[in-house]
Amino acid sequence: MLGKIMELWFTENHTDEARFSIKVDKHLFSKQSEFQRIDVFESKEFGKILTLDGFLMVTEKDEFIYHDMITHVPMAVNPNISKVLVIGAGDGGTVRELLRYKTITHIDMVEIDKDVVTVCKEYLPLTACGLTDNKVHLYFEDGLKFVRGKVSEYDLIIVDSTDPFGPGEGLFTKEFYGNCYRALKEDGILVNQHESMYYTSYAESMKRAHQRIQDSFPVAKIYQAHIPTYPSGHWLFGFASKKYDPIQDLDSDKWNKLGLKTKYYNTDLHVGAFAIPNYVKEQLEER
Amino acid sequence: MLGKIMELWFTENHTDEARFSIKVDKHLFSKQSEFQRIDVFESKEFGKILTLDGFLMVTEKDEFIYHDMITHVPMAVNPNISKVLVIGAGDGGTVRELLRYKTITHIDMVEIDKDVVTVCKEYLPLTACGLTDNKVHLYFEDGLKFVRGKVSEYDLIIVDSTDPFGPGEGLFTKEFYGNCYRALKEDGILVNQHESMYYTSYAESMKRAHQRIQDSFPVAKIYQAHIPTYPSGHWLFGFASKKYDPIQDLDSDKWNKLGLKTKYYNTDLHVGAFAIPNYVKEQLEER
Repeated sequence: MLGKIMELWFTENHTDEARFSIKVDKHLFSKQSEFQRIDVFESKEFGKILTLDGFLMVTEKDEFIYHDMITHVPMAVNPNISKVLVIGAGDGGTVRELLRYKTITHIDMVEIDKDVVTVCKEYLPLTACGLTDNKVHLYFEDGLKFVRGKVSEYDLIIVDSTDPFGPGEGLFTKEFYGNCYRALKEDGILVNQHESMYYTSYAESMKRAHQRIQDSFPVAKIYQAHIPTYPSGHWLFGFASKKYDPIQDLDSDKWNKLGLKTKYYNTDLHVGAFAIPNYVKEQLEER
Repeated sequence: MLGKIMELWFTENHTDEARFSIKVDKHLFSKQSEFQRIDVFESKEFGKILTLDGFLMVTEKDEFIYHDMITHVPMAVNPNISKVLVIGAGDGGTVRELLRYKTITHIDMVEIDKDVVTVCKEYLPLTACGLTDNKVHLYFEDGLKFVRGKVSEYDLIIVDSTDPFGPGEGLFTKEFYGNCYRALKEDGILVNQHESMYYTSYAESMKRAHQRIQDSFPVAKIYQAHIPTYPSGHWLFGFASKKYDPIQDLDSDKWNKLGLKTKYYNTDLHVGAFAIPNYVKEQLEER
């Protein structure tokens, strides 16, 4: 712990006008990889923190919220999911949650930046713990290219990307969503992280992304979670599918019988998460 | 607007280890009242901002979220509410929303600090607009004392208090909740702002407050909203009543027929707001 004289703060500018800062004890790691700057910090309140290009990606304190919501929502809608494609997610948290389902026999994980995985294996074993499981097949390449040409292969695609600028930019395009549609089986589900609509800088790009998903998939809904360390804390996810409705096709009893202990997700919250505020709904519906 | 050389930032420490900062253009007002320090800032992203003892209370950008959730939730459960007691709420936003209901004929508003009302009338007409309505009866005294001795008078009590320390402290005690119970009619509802459970500093005091409400009222539930400018952004409210269940007794059709336009609240979200995450539920249930 640092003494009283010196303090070290990590600050993320959520906009030019608002910022969130975390007191850190140590800057554990820093590297400019081929794609982005990777940093790991140690903090008292949030545990270890991973940032990419200065944007907070994972904290040990609240990573469970994001990873619960990006995995258990689709799994509770179709509990027979067996083959999954995960794009991004270098920290491993998404794969860790998926591996809790016995029905899942094969996970392809495509992360553009090998260094992120290496760093997380060393500094974030809490999330990276499942990456050596033999059901997990790691590919270090561009998710956009990987999904091109795949046809009816996956039950579920999870796009656990960075922001809609920088290395993750292509993962918010019409071409990408079209390729995901083709790569999914006839009852396939696509889930993607969808940023926040509270600050206008994010809102515009996510409105476009949602419209592109709506153009590609017959079912396209938005759900939300409280993630305090992300900009505004009001984080959105996209649920798109060829067939399943995330509420009508939720099988609460079946999911609850699995007996998975979760710190954030439950099946009542699953339904509640799709009830988004009017101001978010109105922004998404504007064409 | 300030130039490039000088920047002025308002910072609130959410804990000793985490803080949220807003770039401000001007410090419009500052006064040490009898009870607390009152400040008003002007900012580009959030509009005008009111802080009490350095804690952010209201911003023009997102006050609608808090005020929607503290008023429309009880009003949609019992649309016949006519006499209301509001404790705190000096900014006027709660009264503004209540005045939209024709069924409400009498509002007693008890604010300990007259200076807060004076300041909000001058700087925050967006929220303070309804305070001169002739249905509104303003009392500048301690809410704790005001409610003592009242018997079966109100259909609804809203405790729109500051934090559970400082001038608002007494509004989280067993004695106060017992007095509220007595002041309510036989189908009365109590709604209170309930802080956040994300940071442990708040969690402990709110766990105790919830247990005290449970000891006083047969129905005591917690609901949540996304309020980005409050600590963690995951804000909780308490709904307690002598009779009504906030979900089973919700009359969505009736509320929707009122035709009230809201930017945050809707009746689906009403139900969803009561679906709280497991980690919050577990903390509240610990005795």
